[in-house]
Amino acid sequence: MTTAIKSIKSLVPLLDRVLVQRAKAEAKTSGGIFLPESAVKDLNEAKVLAVGPGMLDKDGKRVPMSVNSGDRVLIPQYGGSPLKVGEDEYSLFRDHELLAKIND
Amino acid sequence: MTTAIKSIKSLVPLLDRVLVQRAKAEAKTSGGIFLPESAVKDLNEAKVLAVGPGMLDKDGKRVPMSVNSGDRVLIPQYGGSPLKVGEDEYSLFRDHELLAKIND
Amino acid sequence: MTTAIKSIKSLVPLLDRVLVQRAKAEAKTSGGIFLPESAVKDLNEAKVLAVGPGMLDKDGKRVPMSVNSGDRVLIPQYGGSPLKVGEDEYSLFRDHELLAKIND
Amino acid sequence: MTTAIKSIKSLVPLLDRVLVQRAKAEAKTSGGIFLPESAVKDLNEAKVLAVGPGMLDKDGKRVPMSVNSGDRVLIPQYGGSPLKVGEDEYSLFRDHELLAKIND
Amino acid sequence: MTTAIKSIKSLVPLLDRVLVQRAKAEAKTSGGIFLPESAVKDLNEAKVLAVGPGMLDKDGKRVPMSVNSGDRVLIPQYGGSPLKVGEDEYSLFRDHELLAKIND
Amino acid sequence: MTTAIKSIKSLVPLLDRVLVQRAKAEAKTSGGIFLPESAVKDLNEAKVLAVGPGMLDKDGKRVPMSVNSGDRVLIPQYGGSPLKVGEDEYSLFRDHELLAKIND
Amino acid sequence: MTTAIKSIKSLVPLLDRVLVQRAKAEAKTSGGIFLPESAVKDLNEAKVLAVGPGMLDKDGKRVPMSVNSGDRVLIPQYGGSPLKVGEDEYSLFRDHELLAKIND
Repeated sequence: MTTAIKSIKSLVPLLDRVLVQRAKAEAKTSGGIFLPESAVKDLNEAKVLAVGPGMLDKDGKRVPMSVNSGDRVLIPQYGGSPLKVGEDEYSLFRDHELLAKIND
Repeated sequence: MTTAIKSIKSLVPLLDRVLVQRAKAEAKTSGGIFLPESAVKDLNEAKVLAVGPGMLDKDGKRVPMSVNSGDRVLIPQYGGSPLKVGEDEYSLFRDHELLAKIND
Repeated sequence: MTTAIKSIKSLVPLLDRVLVQRAKAEAKTSGGIFLPESAVKDLNEAKVLAVGPGMLDKDGKRVPMSVNSGDRVLIPQYGGSPLKVGEDEYSLFRDHELLAKIND
Repeated sequence: MTTAIKSIKSLVPLLDRVLVQRAKAEAKTSGGIFLPESAVKDLNEAKVLAVGPGMLDKDGKRVPMSVNSGDRVLIPQYGGSPLKVGEDEYSLFRDHELLAKIND
Repeated sequence: MTTAIKSIKSLVPLLDRVLVQRAKAEAKTSGGIFLPESAVKDLNEAKVLAVGPGMLDKDGKRVPMSVNSGDRVLIPQYGGSPLKVGEDEYSLFRDHELLAKIND
Repeated sequence: MTTAIKSIKSLVPLLDRVLVQRAKAEAKTSGGIFLPESAVKDLNEAKVLAVGPGMLDKDGKRVPMSVNSGDRVLIPQYGGSPLKVGEDEYSLFRDHELLAKIND
Repeated sequence: MTTAIKSIKSLVPLLDRVLVQRAKAEAKTSGGIFLPESAVKDLNEAKVLAVGPGMLDKDGKRVPMSVNSGDRVLIPQYGGSPLKVGEDEYSLFRDHELLAKIND
């Protein structure tokens, strides 16, 4: 999806949605050698940029979200809504679609 | 969908539906140069024109809507009911289908 | 669907069903010039002729309907049960399938 | 479905089922002229012959049925369980599948 | 399904299941003339041999069954779990799949 | 499924799962004559080896299971999770998938 | 899925997810003879490395998990989210997808 949004910071996810940016694979080894592009794989790791307020339960209360801004998370291989702001790519997931937090 | 509706303002969305108008991509650059049509992409950004009263919960109360008239929102790539009034195109989404608010 | 019903007025929708008649596109312009048939498009606008009493909720009470007889409504592009009485065509929708009221 | 049932009157629908007999299209015009078979269309009108006691709700009470024996109803174009007793054809629908009552 | 069960009477249906035996079409007319096999059709009539105790509702109580042992019932054209004990064929249906009782 | 499990007795089914072993068809007749393999059919009869504690209902209580260890049951023709321990084959079903108990 | 995660220990499953590592089939017999690779089968046995806090029920309380870290479990043949950290492969399952505990 393409938008005319100026900054990703202007996005406020709705309900139980979570805005994430996928981590980029290092294009060089830890020793500093640049890897050919075919050796760089898609990572299923992402950084949480913003979280929605949560779904409304049947009593009108918000269901708490599982993650917070700044969290690193493991995202599923498929799904999510892709989003492009300028040259950068982001995704929106629903809270329950995220698999795990990463606490390195 | 084609209608004989005279003005989009006469539309009152039902239940949890949200009437939006997709943002148009600028056909010229910020420097004033007109872009060829192939460079203009569909945007997934829209302006909320009208919102329904919300779904009824099991106690007969309205579930509050997530957005208001005038809000700018990120809409999903697929889905929604397209609508044409005169030459202008609009869409109707359900409240939970909208992805994020845009607060530029 | 074909019926032997004498008058559409004898139909009483059940539960949350809404009986509507699709608006006909004007076959001539506002200036009085008759349009060729190919220029007349299907409209997704309809007039509500009759509404059911509403679904029963889990306590046996009726869920209120969103529209009333005489309302003009925006109907979805697909769906609904078509019905023919004499030469006239009608449709039955469920209340939550209707998109918006039209208050011209 | 074929049965060895002697009389349709011996059938007692279960739960929310409704036993109906589809109305037959008149094979002659109101002026008495017999119509060729190709002009006789299937009607989606039926007479209710028997109704079940209704589904059980979560408290063990019966959900009231929308129609009664003797009612004329509009049935959907597809669905229902066909049933043949002798040479006559009948159908069983669930209460919520019926579209409208016909009160001519 | 084939079993090594000695007698069908040893089967006790679980939850809301109903054990039935499909009625056999008479292979001769009421006047005693034997019919060729092609004239004998499958009947959708069955005798109830045993019924389960019923599903458990959310409070742990049994939902009452709609039929009893010895009832004759109308079964749907498709569905049910077929079962063979010796040379005889039986079926297991869920209570809500049965269409009607037959009270000849 | 293949496992390195030493004994089937070490398996403790989770939630509402039931561990069963399908009954073997006798390869010889009751008179002692050995049957050719083509005459030996798969049986849909099984012995219950272990049962899970039951699902949790919305109040956190266990929903009682329908069968016990040692029960003989009728299993459905399809479904279940196959499992191989050594040369022996077993299956895991969910409690509500089992059709009937066999009380020979 | 590929990640840049340094250690599997940094993964904290969300909601009702369970992180497991599939058991490896011994590539040699108990007598010490190495097996050709074709004789080594995938095992459906796994070790639980970490468990999520559980789903939230409608009152906001956590639904208890069925397994704990360190448990050995039987996993289903299909499903789960695969995950690769370094050269090692892991999977994430939802709690109710796990079939049985293994208490050797």
